[in-house]
Amino acid sequence: MLKVINNNEKKKYLKKSKKVGLPPGSLVTNAEKKTEHTKIKIIDYDKESFNIENVLKIEKSIMNIGKGKIRWIIIDGITQVDIIKDVGNQFNLHSLVLEDILNTNQTPKFEDYGDYIFIVLKKLLWDKNKNKFETEQISIILGENYVIVIREQESTIFDPIIDRIIIPKGRVRLMGADYLAYTLIDIIIDNYFIVQEIVGESIEEIEDSLIEDPQSETLHSIYKLKRSTLELRKSIWPVREIINKLQREESQLISDNMHIYFRDIYDHIFRINDSLQNYREIISGMLDVYLSSISNKMNDIMKVLTIISTIFIPLSFIAGFYGMNFINMPEISSPFGYPLLILLMIMIAFIMVLYFLRKKWI
Amino acid sequence: MLKVINNNEKKKYLKKSKKVGLPPGSLVTNAEKKTEHTKIKIIDYDKESFNIENVLKIEKSIMNIGKGKIRWIIIDGITQVDIIKDVGNQFNLHSLVLEDILNTNQTPKFEDYGDYIFIVLKKLLWDKNKNKFETEQISIILGENYVIVIREQESTIFDPIIDRIIIPKGRVRLMGADYLAYTLIDIIIDNYFIVQEIVGESIEEIEDSLIEDPQSETLHSIYKLKRSTLELRKSIWPVREIINKLQREESQLISDNMHIYFRDIYDHIFRINDSLQNYREIISGMLDVYLSSISNKMNDIMKVLTIISTIFIPLSFIAGFYGMNFINMPEISSPFGYPLLILLMIMIAFIMVLYFLRKKWI
Amino acid sequence: MLKVINNNEKKKYLKKSKKVGLPPGSLVTNAEKKTEHTKIKIIDYDKESFNIENVLKIEKSIMNIGKGKIRWIIIDGITQVDIIKDVGNQFNLHSLVLEDILNTNQTPKFEDYGDYIFIVLKKLLWDKNKNKFETEQISIILGENYVIVIREQESTIFDPIIDRIIIPKGRVRLMGADYLAYTLIDIIIDNYFIVQEIVGESIEEIEDSLIEDPQSETLHSIYKLKRSTLELRKSIWPVREIINKLQREESQLISDNMHIYFRDIYDHIFRINDSLQNYREIISGMLDVYLSSISNKMNDIMKVLTIISTIFIPLSFIAGFYGMNFINMPEISSPFGYPLLILLMIMIAFIMVLYFLRKKWI
Amino acid sequence: MLKVINNNEKKKYLKKSKKVGLPPGSLVTNAEKKTEHTKIKIIDYDKESFNIENVLKIEKSIMNIGKGKIRWIIIDGITQVDIIKDVGNQFNLHSLVLEDILNTNQTPKFEDYGDYIFIVLKKLLWDKNKNKFETEQISIILGENYVIVIREQESTIFDPIIDRIIIPKGRVRLMGADYLAYTLIDIIIDNYFIVQEIVGESIEEIEDSLIEDPQSETLHSIYKLKRSTLELRKSIWPVREIINKLQREESQLISDNMHIYFRDIYDHIFRINDSLQNYREIISGMLDVYLSSISNKMNDIMKVLTIISTIFIPLSFIAGFYGMNFINMPEISSPFGYPLLILLMIMIAFIMVLYFLRKKWI
Amino acid sequence: MLKVINNNEKKKYLKKSKKVGLPPGSLVTNAEKKTEHTKIKIIDYDKESFNIENVLKIEKSIMNIGKGKIRWIIIDGITQVDIIKDVGNQFNLHSLVLEDILNTNQTPKFEDYGDYIFIVLKKLLWDKNKNKFETEQISIILGENYVIVIREQESTIFDPIIDRIIIPKGRVRLMGADYLAYTLIDIIIDNYFIVQEIVGESIEEIEDSLIEDPQSETLHSIYKLKRSTLELRKSIWPVREIINKLQREESQLISDNMHIYFRDIYDHIFRINDSLQNYREIISGMLDVYLSSISNKMNDIMKVLTIISTIFIPLSFIAGFYGMNFINMPEISSPFGYPLLILLMIMIAFIMVLYFLRKKWI
Repeated sequence: MLKVINNNEKKKYLKKSKKVGLPPGSLVTNAEKKTEHTKIKIIDYDKESFNIENVLKIEKSIMNIGKGKIRWIIIDGITQVDIIKDVGNQFNLHSLVLEDILNTNQTPKFEDYGDYIFIVLKKLLWDKNKNKFETEQISIILGENYVIVIREQESTIFDPIIDRIIIPKGRVRLMGADYLAYTLIDIIIDNYFIVQEIVGESIEEIEDSLIEDPQSETLHSIYKLKRSTLELRKSIWPVREIINKLQREESQLISDNMHIYFRDIYDHIFRINDSLQNYREIISGMLDVYLSSISNKMNDIMKVLTIISTIFIPLSFIAGFYGMNFINMPEISSPFGYPLLILLMIMIAFIMVLYFLRKKWI
Repeated sequence: MLKVINNNEKKKYLKKSKKVGLPPGSLVTNAEKKTEHTKIKIIDYDKESFNIENVLKIEKSIMNIGKGKIRWIIIDGITQVDIIKDVGNQFNLHSLVLEDILNTNQTPKFEDYGDYIFIVLKKLLWDKNKNKFETEQISIILGENYVIVIREQESTIFDPIIDRIIIPKGRVRLMGADYLAYTLIDIIIDNYFIVQEIVGESIEEIEDSLIEDPQSETLHSIYKLKRSTLELRKSIWPVREIINKLQREESQLISDNMHIYFRDIYDHIFRINDSLQNYREIISGMLDVYLSSISNKMNDIMKVLTIISTIFIPLSFIAGFYGMNFINMPEISSPFGYPLLILLMIMIAFIMVLYFLRKKWI
Repeated sequence: MLKVINNNEKKKYLKKSKKVGLPPGSLVTNAEKKTEHTKIKIIDYDKESFNIENVLKIEKSIMNIGKGKIRWIIIDGITQVDIIKDVGNQFNLHSLVLEDILNTNQTPKFEDYGDYIFIVLKKLLWDKNKNKFETEQISIILGENYVIVIREQESTIFDPIIDRIIIPKGRVRLMGADYLAYTLIDIIIDNYFIVQEIVGESIEEIEDSLIEDPQSETLHSIYKLKRSTLELRKSIWPVREIINKLQREESQLISDNMHIYFRDIYDHIFRINDSLQNYREIISGMLDVYLSSISNKMNDIMKVLTIISTIFIPLSFIAGFYGMNFINMPEISSPFGYPLLILLMIMIAFIMVLYFLRKKWI
Repeated sequence: MLKVINNNEKKKYLKKSKKVGLPPGSLVTNAEKKTEHTKIKIIDYDKESFNIENVLKIEKSIMNIGKGKIRWIIIDGITQVDIIKDVGNQFNLHSLVLEDILNTNQTPKFEDYGDYIFIVLKKLLWDKNKNKFETEQISIILGENYVIVIREQESTIFDPIIDRIIIPKGRVRLMGADYLAYTLIDIIIDNYFIVQEIVGESIEEIEDSLIEDPQSETLHSIYKLKRSTLELRKSIWPVREIINKLQREESQLISDNMHIYFRDIYDHIFRINDSLQNYREIISGMLDVYLSSISNKMNDIMKVLTIISTIFIPLSFIAGFYGMNFINMPEISSPFGYPLLILLMIMIAFIMVLYFLRKKWI
Repeated sequence: MLKVINNNEKKKYLKKSKKVGLPPGSLVTNAEKKTEHTKIKIIDYDKESFNIENVLKIEKSIMNIGKGKIRWIIIDGITQVDIIKDVGNQFNLHSLVLEDILNTNQTPKFEDYGDYIFIVLKKLLWDKNKNKFETEQISIILGENYVIVIREQESTIFDPIIDRIIIPKGRVRLMGADYLAYTLIDIIIDNYFIVQEIVGESIEEIEDSLIEDPQSETLHSIYKLKRSTLELRKSIWPVREIINKLQREESQLISDNMHIYFRDIYDHIFRINDSLQNYREIISGMLDVYLSSISNKMNDIMKVLTIISTIFIPLSFIAGFYGMNFINMPEISSPFGYPLLILLMIMIAFIMVLYFLRKKWI
């Protein structure tokens, strides 16, 4: 299989730091060093027995799975490209599959290679500090009696499944590799419900300040949420089509009684997509509401300015008028001038206030 | 069937209060305690006889339905998980069906399991106090000679159907379980017309204040209405596909002469969706109209401010000018100064008013 | 057939005044009393003969149509439910058809019941006083040798067709019931062109004031037009699918040479829908244009205010400055103070005007 | 064939001036008298010979086309309905075809009548004076050995094709009537590229003033362009489907080697539609950009007003303050009062300017 | 083949400078003279041998490719139309293919002519100076044992492929012409990732100034980015369909084991389109955010103006009031008048400030 690797002519190094004009003959990963050392865990089980083992490298004997047994290989970390190469060699995987495992910029995908099915999914993590979602790529290879899972780094997401396998009469122990793959996918998609909930809560947080007290930070939050939702869609939307394919797949690797389980996951992913779609519409509407709110506020500011100005500018004019130094201003020298003027001013102010009351500005 | 339940490994507890990492082996409901005690009603009927009975638990004899009879089981409340388990055991339902019944976050769904058809619908209730729609999940299981209805809580929605069954020669009595299921679905969907009407009325209420007197509360109402409509769509939109499947379904459980009835419901749900779609477009347009109205109002405010300022600021300047204390200001000591100035001021004000009249600001 | 009516359990009374929990066994109409008495007109014709007759009720002999003859029954008014019941009984119509005829909230629909085809269309009337479109439901039942037309009220829309039938060698006389149904549908759809024209003219009327002189009434008109167009779409859009079905229909009731005629109507309805679609986009754009126009106007107002304020506020300050009563202000007692100050003021005003000219505000 | 015309019962007279309730039996045109006299040109050609002839009326011998010859009939003007009737009679055209030729409100259409194919296209003319597009309807009837072209008025659009036919060994001379029809359609669609270019140029013209100096005329231009583009789409969009049908058509009238030519036209029309679609999105965005620009400008105006007001209003207050006539104002009689006040004023102005600098308003 | 060229009647010269009414019989290019002289490079290889040669013209012997060899012809520059003609003659290409090669306004296209497959793609170049994307058309003709590449000008894009061919045991050397075509398409599409990255970076650059400090240049950048993205879509979107056709193509020219490679490219182009789609939505939202930001800023300006005006206008009025020259103003002559007035003014200012604090304007 060395040939496959030597002849790999692909060059998709989205991060500019990776050279585009790379010479053929080497698999490269774009993973930032999330995990220093790749960890390999091998879990063998059948109805009667169960064994879990940590190994350092992929042995040639990896394909020798006991009769009737299921082998589940978990590889955490993709920086040690050699280990992925070895997996590729031992399980006879296509060079494009290896390339996709190593490139973490994949969108979710499903490919049936006959002997094995290759699935790429995205686990979504909410990073509270950065206030955005991080994605982690999980590749699943489903063979006749084995499942290989390759993750960017170690995580506890699949621990409940290991716990269930340990239980001697657990359903996982009684069923095939396809059921194991199903539980893995199911747990990743259940994870998306939490994602959906976080978005929903963010929307509710913003809503509170949206209409009553819109701030520049509110706008910032809406925009960030909009971007996050678009990013989410990229990771979640294609999963629907993948599960649909699994549900209808006529591959021998998936037994007939599994279809109802995949149909169930399909409903879940459909529901999540539906909610995200709703959220996107809500967020889009928020921008309009924000703008309207801001305009509302400006209206209030303008009203105050206009009321004050409209009342006092004419009064100031009158005051200024009788501050003129003309010699022959009869009003000034009249003893009734001053009290009449005060009366006039009160009347003007009164009329203005009435006008504003009629206009419902006060 | 205990095994099915023991092996249920699903964990979709959208409310965070429910633990995600739940050990397998127990069905859980996310229902908030709407009903303390689950109520079970069993209605048996055929052309000649009719019997209604309240029971406390699902007996093993529940499947012994008399020959030619139809059994309709109404279960109100899903907090007593054991009862749902018993139903699952007696009627041999798939564990995924039981899970869906207990999880009230389902979107409407239709599934044909061969022996029975599983339908989930949402009843919509307008909560006047909270000013929003509440949904209640209604699960319907249609078997050969039985219909099981599971609701979150007791309600009167199906009482008219019970009344009709009581009538000896009523059409329901003459037809099969499929016709009973049809009447149940029909009554739920008829309910949606009321929902549609409430939205329509809300739109009309908002419209009145939208253009003439837009307030910050108007904006609030539009936004809330928009969100409600999106929520409604989530509950109503998928129903169309469900009815379409029922209409075309080749299941033995649905007799051929039922298709025309389901086609009729399909028309209803199509009409409701159409109206809701229209409402959504109207509401979207409302935000634009609101913004335009606010701008209109601001224009009016600005006009008042500008008219007052533009007339009086120059006049004030002139008044201030002749309030200066320079020694040699010939106008001031002239006897014609004062009357000429008054004339000038009147002219300036007059010209300004003319200008505003030409601009149609007054 | 009384049974069908007795067993009608449907309850879709959108107007709240009609009780929802209605007991089964009676057909109800939601028609407001547009016509007090239902009028029935029976037109019989073949190549040689022609007969027109007004009757008061549906006789049992209504189905006895002479050999080779076509019978066209026009029923105006649906408040006398018994007459519709009788039609249902005599022509053996499904109870759902009768229900649809009586409920005027139908969207346009097409249903092939084998023996007869049931079509519901909407006639659109422009009500000048209310300034909106009124719809009138027209139900058409096409049988082998008869066409039944049920309208909400009497109208002259089909009079030209009657005129044509009177002409002995008119094409209608030579062809079957399907051709008669075609002419009826054609005349209803031709009517939509007038609707389209009214919308087009309304748009042009609004356009004139849209950019040059946007008023709050303009906004009102745009919004009303938008709503009307959405209502229109609800009545017209589904017609396309109906005509498409008629065009492809393999029913025996429609002869092959009719397909080219229905294809022609299909083109018409396609053209109308296309125009309405265009109108909707134009109207949507109008709201944006309106808002921009309003902002433009506000800009103009602001400019006037700013020019006046910016010129006179500094001048007023200077005037106020030399209106101060300090004892030792050398400028005031200087003989050059006053003329120099006037010069300064003219210069400031001049510079300001230059500034505004450069900014193109004047 | 007189019968067809006598029995024509259609009444689609979109211009209200034409009576809707027209009696059957006469073909009417809605063409405004663009051409007083209809001009008929007959071009006959085969590999060896070529003949061009102007005639005044359609003779009965029009169908006698020499063996192996192609006859191309160009009819300019549709006001003389009799000539169209004669064409219909001689070439045995369906009455609906004649009606469509005479009604210039057609959308583009394609219809295969077996013996002949009927195509309606729109030629687009840019009217510089009216600043909008005019459409002209061109009907093409393709028979086995003839092509009939009916235009609303004489034009030079097809002259290059006549020139090419004159060349003895030109490709047109060597191929059939289908190739002639292809060249006609090709030249009409090539015409659309000019239309596309005019729209593109209009967009670029508007763009220049859009952001830097938005005027009310800019808004006017954007709106007009939007309307024009919508009108264009109505004429151009359906052409895609027409060409698609021609490309796949299994009619005997179109030989197999023509398909690659129609595929080529299909690419052209696809490209034009694509560009128009892009243009529509650009124009839609322009309205938003315009509104933002206007707001930007208003911001600038507001800044000027605010800076001037905020600096001078406090200063004016101080000046007014010391213009008061109270008897015991110690500052006024103090010799340091005046210079200290000037200092205070300068400081206030300085602080204000600093504030505006920090806010980046200056 | 001269005939083909002579009979070429097409006239699509989008640049007006090229005459529309061109006489038939000559192929024309719309390429602006990017390359003065067309350069031709011929690369022959099989498993054992490799040869590269620069030639000046297409010889008649060009079709004599050694048995088992692959010939790759690179033609840089399309201004020398004769060379393209010669290629057309020697490889027997359809005249429409030659025309498409010469017209650089093509959208990407795929056409299977049986003997050869014709593909047009667009290479995208970011022109830093003009700040926009330039497109370069690359035509690929895939025959049984040859690949012809025609570019508008010389470039280094395919140099890595030449390098790989030089390696004796490189995969390219071992596989057929279809694999060579695949590597060419792959390298062009990899290029699009860089395009995607540039757009993504531009978005991030704009985002920084979007909310905090929106300027008129920000608006300019958003608008330009929107236009660029629309242009990009035109070049990239159709590629998806092309690759899809290649992936499913049943042409003999593409061997079965190539399908998995084209499926891989399909995933890439799908991912790019997806990202561009996201970018378009982000950019659309940016305009709304920009407008909201501008309104926010205006609100801030208005607040400053209103606070200053509202505090000082009443105070100025009072000052002006006591600047009046009436004879009998008791306050003025009172010794407490002045200090009390100062107190009053401080109170008014204090109340105003409190009011603004409560309104959260300060």
